Amino acid sequence: MSIFHSRTELVELGQEECLRLLRTRRVGRVAFVADGHPLILPVNYAVDAATIVIRTDRGTKLASMPLTSVAFEVDDIDEVGAQGWDVVVQGHADDITDSIDRRSEVLRALRIDTFAPGMKWHWIRISPRTISGRRLLSR
Amino acid sequence: MSIFHSRTELVELGQEECLRLLRTRRVGRVAFVADGHPLILPVNYAVDAATIVIRTDRGTKLASMPLTSVAFEVDDIDEVGAQGWDVVVQGHADDITDSIDRRSEVLRALRIDTFAPGMKWHWIRISPRTISGRRLLSR
Repeated sequence: MSIFHSRTELVELGQEECLRLLRTRRVGRVAFVADGHPLILPVNYAVDAATIVIRTDRGTKLASMPLTSVAFEVDDIDEVGAQGWDVVVQGHADDITDSIDRRSEVLRALRIDTFAPGMKWHWIRISPRTISGRRLLSR
Repeated sequence: MSIFHSRTELVELGQEECLRLLRTRRVGRVAFVADGHPLILPVNYAVDAATIVIRTDRGTKLASMPLTSVAFEVDDIDEVGAQGWDVVVQGHADDITDSIDRRSEVLRALRIDTFAPGMKWHWIRISPRTISGRRLLSR
C-alpha cells in the first residue's frame, strides 16, 4: 500500500479562483444522464461570468442535456508530479440556440473553437448552481 | 464563427485500443448522481482487464456511487494542437471493500497511488457495460 497520500495537500479554492481557472482551458467535460445512465463527454467550451456555454450537433448531448441537471469539470493535473487543480460546476442546462433574449445573444457571440468536426449549430448554456474547486499541492 | 472543425477528424476507437489507452493514465474522472444531480470528480484509478477500480474515503463518492450506474472518463487532449483521445466507460459501481471473493481480492491488490491525502480505505469497482473511445486527428 502506498503512503504517497501523506506527501500531498488538498486545498479548497474560492469562487474567484475557480472562475479564473475555468477561463484558462479550452477543453472540459460534461456529465449528464442519458437514457437513465450517467455519461461523461469531453467538450470545448466558453465561459461568461460563471455561465458555461458549449456547442453541439444533434446527438446525445442535445437529446439529453437541455432542461436537466448537469455537471461540468475542468482540470489540469500533473500525473508525474501529483499536483494540479480541478474545478467542478453543477448546474442546469438549457438549449439557447433559438432563444431571443439579450443574454442568449451575448452567449452565442462567444468564440468556441470546437475541435471535433461538425457544424455544431446548437448552443447549450449551463447555468451554475454550485462551483467548487481544489488545488492539489505536492510537499 | 470558426471553421476550425474542418481541419480535424474524429475516429472511433476499437475496444482493444480503448483498454490499452485506459492503462496509460493515472487520473480519470467519475460521473455519478449525488442527491439527484450529476457530479464529476477526478480520481486516481487502476484497470484490470476492463474493470476500473478506485479508492476513496467516506464522502460523496462512497455515499452515492455503490449500486448505481456511473461513468468513467480518461482523456489526453492537446489544447493547442487540437488532437488527442478520450475513452468513456459506462457501468455499474460496487463497494468491494469487504467483499470476500477471489475477484475482489485481486482488484484490491492493485496498486493505486492516490494523489489526494486521506487513507482511502474503501474500494469501488466499476464493472463496464459499454466502453467507447475516440481519437481526434488534426489534418
